[in-house]
Amino acid sequence: MKLLWYSTILLICAEAVFGEKYEASWDSLDSRPLPEWFDNAKIGIFIHWGVFSVPSMGTEWFWTFWNDGGEVTEYLKNNFPPYFSYQEFAKDFTAEFFNATEWAELFANSGARYVVLTSKHHEGFTMWPSSYSYSWNSKDLGPHRDIVGELGEAVRAANLTYGLYHSLLEWYHPLYQSEKSNNFITTEFPEKKSMPELYELVNNYQPAIIWSDGAWESPDTYWNATGFIAWLYNESPVKDFVVTNDRWGQSITCKHGGYYTCNDRYLPDGLQTKKWENAMSLDRYSFGYRRNAKLADYLSSQELITTVVQTVAYGGNILINIGPAHDGTINLIFQERLLDLGSWLSVNGEAIYDSNPWTQAQKDNLTSNVYYTTKEKYYYAIFLEWPKDSQLNELSLGSVIDLFNEGTIVTLLGYNSSLTWTNSSESIQISLPDLSNVSTRNAWVLKIEAA
Amino acid sequence: MKLLWYSTILLICAEAVFGEKYEASWDSLDSRPLPEWFDNAKIGIFIHWGVFSVPSMGTEWFWTFWNDGGEVTEYLKNNFPPYFSYQEFAKDFTAEFFNATEWAELFANSGARYVVLTSKHHEGFTMWPSSYSYSWNSKDLGPHRDIVGELGEAVRAANLTYGLYHSLLEWYHPLYQSEKSNNFITTEFPEKKSMPELYELVNNYQPAIIWSDGAWESPDTYWNATGFIAWLYNESPVKDFVVTNDRWGQSITCKHGGYYTCNDRYLPDGLQTKKWENAMSLDRYSFGYRRNAKLADYLSSQELITTVVQTVAYGGNILINIGPAHDGTINLIFQERLLDLGSWLSVNGEAIYDSNPWTQAQKDNLTSNVYYTTKEKYYYAIFLEWPKDSQLNELSLGSVIDLFNEGTIVTLLGYNSSLTWTNSSESIQISLPDLSNVSTRNAWVLKIEAA
Amino acid sequence: MKLLWYSTILLICAEAVFGEKYEASWDSLDSRPLPEWFDNAKIGIFIHWGVFSVPSMGTEWFWTFWNDGGEVTEYLKNNFPPYFSYQEFAKDFTAEFFNATEWAELFANSGARYVVLTSKHHEGFTMWPSSYSYSWNSKDLGPHRDIVGELGEAVRAANLTYGLYHSLLEWYHPLYQSEKSNNFITTEFPEKKSMPELYELVNNYQPAIIWSDGAWESPDTYWNATGFIAWLYNESPVKDFVVTNDRWGQSITCKHGGYYTCNDRYLPDGLQTKKWENAMSLDRYSFGYRRNAKLADYLSSQELITTVVQTVAYGGNILINIGPAHDGTINLIFQERLLDLGSWLSVNGEAIYDSNPWTQAQKDNLTSNVYYTTKEKYYYAIFLEWPKDSQLNELSLGSVIDLFNEGTIVTLLGYNSSLTWTNSSESIQISLPDLSNVSTRNAWVLKIEAA
Amino acid sequence: MKLLWYSTILLICAEAVFGEKYEASWDSLDSRPLPEWFDNAKIGIFIHWGVFSVPSMGTEWFWTFWNDGGEVTEYLKNNFPPYFSYQEFAKDFTAEFFNATEWAELFANSGARYVVLTSKHHEGFTMWPSSYSYSWNSKDLGPHRDIVGELGEAVRAANLTYGLYHSLLEWYHPLYQSEKSNNFITTEFPEKKSMPELYELVNNYQPAIIWSDGAWESPDTYWNATGFIAWLYNESPVKDFVVTNDRWGQSITCKHGGYYTCNDRYLPDGLQTKKWENAMSLDRYSFGYRRNAKLADYLSSQELITTVVQTVAYGGNILINIGPAHDGTINLIFQERLLDLGSWLSVNGEAIYDSNPWTQAQKDNLTSNVYYTTKEKYYYAIFLEWPKDSQLNELSLGSVIDLFNEGTIVTLLGYNSSLTWTNSSESIQISLPDLSNVSTRNAWVLKIEAA
Repeated sequence: MKLLWYSTILLICAEAVFGEKYEASWDSLDSRPLPEWFDNAKIGIFIHWGVFSVPSMGTEWFWTFWNDGGEVTEYLKNNFPPYFSYQEFAKDFTAEFFNATEWAELFANSGARYVVLTSKHHEGFTMWPSSYSYSWNSKDLGPHRDIVGELGEAVRAANLTYGLYHSLLEWYHPLYQSEKSNNFITTEFPEKKSMPELYELVNNYQPAIIWSDGAWESPDTYWNATGFIAWLYNESPVKDFVVTNDRWGQSITCKHGGYYTCNDRYLPDGLQTKKWENAMSLDRYSFGYRRNAKLADYLSSQELITTVVQTVAYGGNILINIGPAHDGTINLIFQERLLDLGSWLSVNGEAIYDSNPWTQAQKDNLTSNVYYTTKEKYYYAIFLEWPKDSQLNELSLGSVIDLFNEGTIVTLLGYNSSLTWTNSSESIQISLPDLSNVSTRNAWVLKIEAA
Repeated sequence: MKLLWYSTILLICAEAVFGEKYEASWDSLDSRPLPEWFDNAKIGIFIHWGVFSVPSMGTEWFWTFWNDGGEVTEYLKNNFPPYFSYQEFAKDFTAEFFNATEWAELFANSGARYVVLTSKHHEGFTMWPSSYSYSWNSKDLGPHRDIVGELGEAVRAANLTYGLYHSLLEWYHPLYQSEKSNNFITTEFPEKKSMPELYELVNNYQPAIIWSDGAWESPDTYWNATGFIAWLYNESPVKDFVVTNDRWGQSITCKHGGYYTCNDRYLPDGLQTKKWENAMSLDRYSFGYRRNAKLADYLSSQELITTVVQTVAYGGNILINIGPAHDGTINLIFQERLLDLGSWLSVNGEAIYDSNPWTQAQKDNLTSNVYYTTKEKYYYAIFLEWPKDSQLNELSLGSVIDLFNEGTIVTLLGYNSSLTWTNSSESIQISLPDLSNVSTRNAWVLKIEAA
Repeated sequence: MKLLWYSTILLICAEAVFGEKYEASWDSLDSRPLPEWFDNAKIGIFIHWGVFSVPSMGTEWFWTFWNDGGEVTEYLKNNFPPYFSYQEFAKDFTAEFFNATEWAELFANSGARYVVLTSKHHEGFTMWPSSYSYSWNSKDLGPHRDIVGELGEAVRAANLTYGLYHSLLEWYHPLYQSEKSNNFITTEFPEKKSMPELYELVNNYQPAIIWSDGAWESPDTYWNATGFIAWLYNESPVKDFVVTNDRWGQSITCKHGGYYTCNDRYLPDGLQTKKWENAMSLDRYSFGYRRNAKLADYLSSQELITTVVQTVAYGGNILINIGPAHDGTINLIFQERLLDLGSWLSVNGEAIYDSNPWTQAQKDNLTSNVYYTTKEKYYYAIFLEWPKDSQLNELSLGSVIDLFNEGTIVTLLGYNSSLTWTNSSESIQISLPDLSNVSTRNAWVLKIEAA
Repeated sequence: MKLLWYSTILLICAEAVFGEKYEASWDSLDSRPLPEWFDNAKIGIFIHWGVFSVPSMGTEWFWTFWNDGGEVTEYLKNNFPPYFSYQEFAKDFTAEFFNATEWAELFANSGARYVVLTSKHHEGFTMWPSSYSYSWNSKDLGPHRDIVGELGEAVRAANLTYGLYHSLLEWYHPLYQSEKSNNFITTEFPEKKSMPELYELVNNYQPAIIWSDGAWESPDTYWNATGFIAWLYNESPVKDFVVTNDRWGQSITCKHGGYYTCNDRYLPDGLQTKKWENAMSLDRYSFGYRRNAKLADYLSSQELITTVVQTVAYGGNILINIGPAHDGTINLIFQERLLDLGSWLSVNGEAIYDSNPWTQAQKDNLTSNVYYTTKEKYYYAIFLEWPKDSQLNELSLGSVIDLFNEGTIVTLLGYNSSLTWTNSSESIQISLPDLSNVSTRNAWVLKIEAA
């Protein structure tokens, strides 16, 4: 609430100072301050759900593998009539177990603060009853439900922020294909299809994030992206708090926009000048659910927590993707990972939420796998491995040496008494308790309060 | 060919005289002479085929009966899951037996000279891969074929003329519904959907008839109908020979347009000032195929031939509807009726094709069930009942009395020698041969050549 | 009723005389008099309905064409996944329009006096919930109804006699296949499957005909056919009126049994010593319904009536086959043919039902296409063509010359006054009325009452 | 191999002594020594897979909940037509991802030594092409594969032993239902269906376990169970090594048979006189896969290992059930649990496989959650909790006090040096290493070698 209030004030100031709102140019749009809630949230859940969840193999790009002679081609040949088409998967997108409230509860328990759903992926199937996708949407076919609407209500009821992914392009839409082959000179597809949809989405569902995608082969001008964003920032019902990303044209990504996503699984190992987000997936090889994935294809809870820590230490948000099944269930392996993270955050979230990167060091210069964040007067050293082969059960830290003086207090989150430490010329040695007395797993947080 | 040439000349003259082509006003458009081929053709085949051919009960308006509590509601309740939607019928529109060449051959053998297919009915499913109906068309779903294209080629190869039915409205399209509820003030639906489709249809398939429908609740201005027709007449690739009907707006039907269809099964019993067409169906109760129709629901061959004769006698064309099944077959009962007609026309077509109504009498004033047509110097008396209980085996005609003088020759089509006749003050008595020596059934034609 | 009573008396007498019932030997079984109702009935309806009605192409032997490289193989390749199996057609055997009462009404209106349904064809799918075909029957799958039971009730309610076709073999039953490949030495298949089914059928449904089939490659002893028939004749609930045919073993057909069917469409042109039946089909090429049949593949009404007349003249019964569709509809072309026959019989049935062949001549020796039957003191001359090119409109008959003397009265069925005739040394000339005054079509019956 | 040889010798001896093989009586059959391989194996995988895996909710007893008004009834009402039947699920039992080799590899990696598949559950669907279940088996429908055969080959190739579950009864088989309602006086169902199947299974697939089920409401004499088992032990191709359980009749379970399973999840807390097996499931509430299970419904890896330890300590085998999905995948949550167990066993299996219960104490009398096994000269103390709140990091054991003397050596499996210990009057204190240096999780094994 406070955040919203702040950003409202900021906008009012901006208008007061500049005499007007944002213009439809990247310079102007880029100047808008990022609503604070986004940087503070740190962790979001990404949901890839669509007709691709029916075949549920290959990846969410299933359709594009149709004739490539690989696994998908073989699967189609063995299990479907020759003339079967992708669109005919839609009727099996049954979603009979989809319970938005249960989903939202899971996401809340994972420690995430926002949720982003694929309202329409490159396949073009809209997960809401769009006026611009008649008979190719989740109300007319398959689920027979307004997925975007139902999930939005539940997510907000769970006090999470709601965002929507939206693909500008549609691989096989004849208008898009035709204009693509004509170098995007005419704009019938954006005008009749994608942009009306986007306005409809914003007006009907008030998403706090527009997570745009599908512009990698087209100029932003084809979509009139700046025109849309200017409306979004100036006039839309979400103008005061909405955030958008950078995927609005082939030369825009990682250069313009509300925040940067650059490429999938973007995780730079250094501080960035612009807020960024690591859109990654628990399945290393796919954002859409794959029925035939191997256990090793999934990040372990350890790997997930490691990635969260690294992302936040370098100033990013992490958008953790799961792929629900066609029937609306979320595979228990996803649930276990998310709940493991939630469990870890319930003890250690203090080092993550609302934190800032430590400009001096994001990673310890002495011991590997130790990352830093900071908030107010605290510094957090997050170590991903419990020290081994140590008689003394000590952790050595290098980068923090200047923070320590007599009054410095070190505690281990989730452990009730403060820890003793000693210093040497080059490092601080912190005495850890016996591991069997620590309930946290996978990573541990030392909270350092400088005197 | 000759007809085409004539109408081209006419247009050139028109342009020469008026200095320009047709304007987008009904006055101007109504002034265009009807291309002659249409009046000469007399008999067309109407084909109602679409997703409604999958449930194949009720009528082609199946979708509108969904919740009316009647037969359709009951059928859905008994045979489908509660959330089943109309769109999900599409995958069963398999068309595996659809053979356009066989269809065209059947139509040719029925004696028809043109064929009109529902390219899109009120359900919105396009029977061609329209850029404006992505994922809700016969290429993306169901048949996976370009029905409009395939049939067009076959129909023309069989020397028949090809026309296309097209519904302006779509019952359940959200844009249409929304604009309908707003009294058709905005025009997003026509602009994004129906009209682009129509232009696409004309440009891609060059239909000789645009058989418009679905405008009964909207003004013609909503569709910009006159704008489209002006383009059709002035610039389109079919401008020289295309014909269109009158269903372009709620107050247009039976008042403006290329020819009149007024209501379904329109059959006035008097001469009209404007060319008209009787769009009727072999199934009395439905244009779409009904799997559960009774035999009595179908016109008998006798009734069909009667209707053809009456329609032509009063100056109309007849458009005989059949409803193919979801699998592309045409029920044999339809085939039998059409072939019976074809067989009748192979003997008696001379009285039908290229004929004109006889302005003096369309029906005999003495003997019932005798109709007249005329062509060049001939008059045709078509009698639908063979005289019974007559020792003399004679037919009495009243209206023709002035045509008879000494040299008048009367022949029975399909019978090789000329007939003797006698006259009285009020009628002509024509001696018929023994019925067992006449191969024609159902109706017989006397050809009267006045001296 | 009277017939039943007669045959009961007969059996009682037989037992009284011979001291016992029938033995399980062909000699004994063949000695049983045929219940009279059967010969009197003359016309039955044969119904081939089963899972083969789902693909509904090829013939009812569809399954056997699976891999033959022809039309069926092509159809499967184009429309189904590679591993699709025949059994998976069953779920589409929906029968949603099956209305036994309407069927029975149609059959009654066709003039038939009995109805024979395929209770189980060679595919093994039982049309009743057999204890010996669990999960492969019409109650567990597809229709979810007891077809044999429902139809039986309706047929009897329409005063028709009910019979059941039953295939002994099942093409692909592993027990049958195994015993076939072992020369039918063991009898696990008959004992566990076919014969328990037959007893179950008789006990549960009391059919008046057991129309056996599927024994062409096995000896009758494999099935213990005589044992079953002895039970059928001696002890079963239908013993007093049941009739069975001759398809009980590879060397039995046309040699033993209740009456002979010999081969399909059996129509000998001479009198036979044993009662026989012409099991034919309105579709010349299939007993099962074919969605893609051509009109020419069906017998015309003329051809059907011709076949009825020929069959009865030579002493046979005719079993006219129709193939309902998977949804329980009977194609209107079948209905039209049957109703045309019914209409013909409503005028001319007197010459058919309860009639006998005329031992002296079954066919006229002078004029072709004239057949004879007789009943009580009447002789019926059925002529299939109305005489043409005759000034006199006369029919000449040769074989009847001895029947005519002064008092002989000749009438035309359906025409109210008697006809005049003249005789010459070699023939009788009968004066026919003008054809336009006769309502009957296709064939006409002269009833000759000798003085 | 050695085990097989032993049991062969034993049987030869038995025959030598008693002059003959086993009789068809429980006394005789119970006297057969259990083939040793079974007791040594300790851990098996149970697989519940069948048509119930298609709806995949409720439990594998889905069918019986059809009309109970609960979750299943609701699911059916919401997602299927009213007349939909259980059998129609079979076509969706697609098994397209079923890879027997991958399954076997997973089972081997879980540390299991045998595998038991539901060859036929109470639904009656056979997972092999049985001659006695034509058209209701995995070859004719759904997978179109011989599941029993394919899995058997793969399991054996992975050096695991293969067993088959088989249900005697079939809930809805009409013959079974009829005989059940007649108090099992006649035996048509066993004779025509279940018993021929069992012989077929044994002869075709040579299973080392016949895991019988489905006899809880019938007497063993109905099935002639002793007759079958006598054949199994005396003459069958698996007579030398086969093992069977106790579910052969309503008063047999837990009283007679090769080994006891008593009830599901049987886990007595004391030694038993007869070998027993704990047939449990990773899903607490179902053996069949449930798509909509919650994470909390599954045993954690900790709980699984605990159950394994307890079961083995009391002399049982554990049969750990997983439920594959309809498509042949095994949910990753199952895989993770199994691989966690396998990982634990790869370090600690020495205390499990080929071990015996320690007759003196199965559980420590001082410290809770410590269990014992023994093998040769070793005693294994398996502790399920690492001691907490202990400055000394010591484990106290009471029951083993008599085993300790000067030369007693204690090691921790997975830790390379031996541990020091001290004793007091009532207990032994064993010094544990720092937990961070121990890689094993969930449970730890002390190996005690008495001097």
